[in-house]
Amino acid sequence: MIGRGDAEALDAADALAHCRDWFVIPDDGVVYLDGNSLGRTPKRTIAELHRVATEEWAGGLIGSWKQWLDLPGRVGDAVAPLIGAHPGEVIVHDSTSVNLYQLIHAAVALRPGRRVIAVDPTDFPSDVYLAAGIATSLGYELRHGFDRLDDVAVVVRSLVDYRSATTCDLAGETQRIHGAGALALWDLSHAAGAIRVDLHGAGVQLAVGCTYKFLNGGPGAPAFSYVASELQAAIEQPIHGWFGQGDQFEMDATYDPHVDARKLLIGTPAILALTAARVGIETVAEAGIERIAAKGMALTDLALRLCAELELSTSTPHEAEHRGAHIAVHRPDAEAMVAELAVRGVITDLRRPDIIRVGCSALTTRFVDVWDGVTMIAELAEQARGNR
Amino acid sequence: MIGRGDAEALDAADALAHCRDWFVIPDDGVVYLDGNSLGRTPKRTIAELHRVATEEWAGGLIGSWKQWLDLPGRVGDAVAPLIGAHPGEVIVHDSTSVNLYQLIHAAVALRPGRRVIAVDPTDFPSDVYLAAGIATSLGYELRHGFDRLDDVAVVVRSLVDYRSATTCDLAGETQRIHGAGALALWDLSHAAGAIRVDLHGAGVQLAVGCTYKFLNGGPGAPAFSYVASELQAAIEQPIHGWFGQGDQFEMDATYDPHVDARKLLIGTPAILALTAARVGIETVAEAGIERIAAKGMALTDLALRLCAELELSTSTPHEAEHRGAHIAVHRPDAEAMVAELAVRGVITDLRRPDIIRVGCSALTTRFVDVWDGVTMIAELAEQARGNR
Repeated sequence: MIGRGDAEALDAADALAHCRDWFVIPDDGVVYLDGNSLGRTPKRTIAELHRVATEEWAGGLIGSWKQWLDLPGRVGDAVAPLIGAHPGEVIVHDSTSVNLYQLIHAAVALRPGRRVIAVDPTDFPSDVYLAAGIATSLGYELRHGFDRLDDVAVVVRSLVDYRSATTCDLAGETQRIHGAGALALWDLSHAAGAIRVDLHGAGVQLAVGCTYKFLNGGPGAPAFSYVASELQAAIEQPIHGWFGQGDQFEMDATYDPHVDARKLLIGTPAILALTAARVGIETVAEAGIERIAAKGMALTDLALRLCAELELSTSTPHEAEHRGAHIAVHRPDAEAMVAELAVRGVITDLRRPDIIRVGCSALTTRFVDVWDGVTMIAELAEQARGNR
Repeated sequence: MIGRGDAEALDAADALAHCRDWFVIPDDGVVYLDGNSLGRTPKRTIAELHRVATEEWAGGLIGSWKQWLDLPGRVGDAVAPLIGAHPGEVIVHDSTSVNLYQLIHAAVALRPGRRVIAVDPTDFPSDVYLAAGIATSLGYELRHGFDRLDDVAVVVRSLVDYRSATTCDLAGETQRIHGAGALALWDLSHAAGAIRVDLHGAGVQLAVGCTYKFLNGGPGAPAFSYVASELQAAIEQPIHGWFGQGDQFEMDATYDPHVDARKLLIGTPAILALTAARVGIETVAEAGIERIAAKGMALTDLALRLCAELELSTSTPHEAEHRGAHIAVHRPDAEAMVAELAVRGVITDLRRPDIIRVGCSALTTRFVDVWDGVTMIAELAEQARGNR
């Protein structure tokens, strides 16, 4: 039987335990296991928002655009080593949905003659909606599933399933997709800042992801787009705004975009939101993605061992290398239970119809949080059995 | 001859003089005449960013989405009375460029059979780029100018010219465009928060605008979209994200968008950026758009009278009701002069090839600022004449 003392021992030995102090964590006893929906707030974010608003905005005024203009690229360069990308290949802007829209269009334009967009219909809804909307507007087929690829232009796929946390074989599937002549476009939203991702090692050419989950970028923080350097000159995206323009301040009448990843920029970047994203990303980089990934595995390992002991059903893979940094507990009464857990100070989230999602954010989640949360779920489950 | 004392007298009589104290204004003697590129920072924005980051994000964590979910609509409702819109008709999200992209697509879909998008080729570049990109992708004609409208689907047009500040006849032109069977899509970026705009009075059905100029929303603040209530059910936009979905958290596999303006939402809204936009907009509302518009006219009137006296060339209309809240001074040496003005602490901006743009932001620009700025331009012009 795994006791709370065992969790305490794991915390005592945790090389990342000190990172929790980097964050604003109210002394309210809340067990926050929803870091994969919204990561906690770095203390430095509060300070940086204040500094940027006062020194750069109020103080530097319009002149601060000299340092803001390349912020989407600089923040992207901070993301790059966390996902196995090179400098200049990642840019932070807009939202995961807008970025997906751009890159799905870019991908299908690179595969003329192929008129199929393939998705996993159980993928995160925004990804499916975007792909379906584009397929309809172009008169393409939206295909569910990835078995047949010979006529597919682009495969849109999440590296980590937002419910079960199951990971794909990034290298193997990318190779298979590219080998069949299609392009793979990966959504890294539940992976970036949580697990080791090696885009170059896997031969990935296109990816997006959000920064508000494991990268602690704040609510609705701008997302990242990744375009492998060899593809940057070739891609075209459909939303032609002035920040994508190569010589932006010439105010030319003709759109002649940047030749690099900046061609994905559209309107004026949201500097305050980018500031929070920057600090969140820097925080992850400072802790080290290797150590974060290792602790994420250890936290979810504890969660899964507790589930096994306490007879909680889960769809999350038991092999650590096949899962992200959350677990899915399945309960027919998930909705009521998530609400009751919240009343008791344990924050998880509901993924309908039957999933209680338990997020393990290595920088802020302690092993005792996992122990407290999962045993609380089990306690409520036991009560539910008694009530039947 | 208009003396500095005359400007001081205007400041002494200014009903909005106290509003300057609402803003963070460093005691550095800078004469900031670029408020139409980036408005100054409300003090309350600094406080609200801190409160939202600590109380709502760090404190409320994921639970704060209960109050954030409708923030784009609530901030939109704060914009609405400033532009003559009704509650529920304005929503604040993404960027002016993205919003234009959505509404151009929405407009052309409402006018099947008409395959022309009309723009003013000298309009703000992003607007022209977006329209041109969409025209190309749809196989439509991009027409320069608005004389012939019988085959036009949508007219994309700025209410206030970003260079000369010339305003269109909003009601007259909207009536003419709609009367010809086309849809008018107005860009209010240089109008909102600066002049009186009565969208309903003018029969406008579609508009966008930024919040970082006269609305003081901060660098890259999210933009607004306006869709008249009678058009909301009919419009369709192409970027299908999960925040546009009617029952977002059901995670349905099929996109079934909101029936109201929320159908324009795409990805997760940037809450920190929206917070700054909200405060900026509230600041304008508190001062009152009527008083702001009146002071804007008085400031630009002083600027234009000084230009006449000091023999500076301008393309800005002399009739106050035909201009926005900035003026354009034309100089062949505009680029060098904008740089030299900045060295001397007078911040204007350059609009190539030959425009020095002088912005008059009623809440923060004093009449003495206008006097100091324009007389400095004249002084440099005089020196340039001497140097020839």
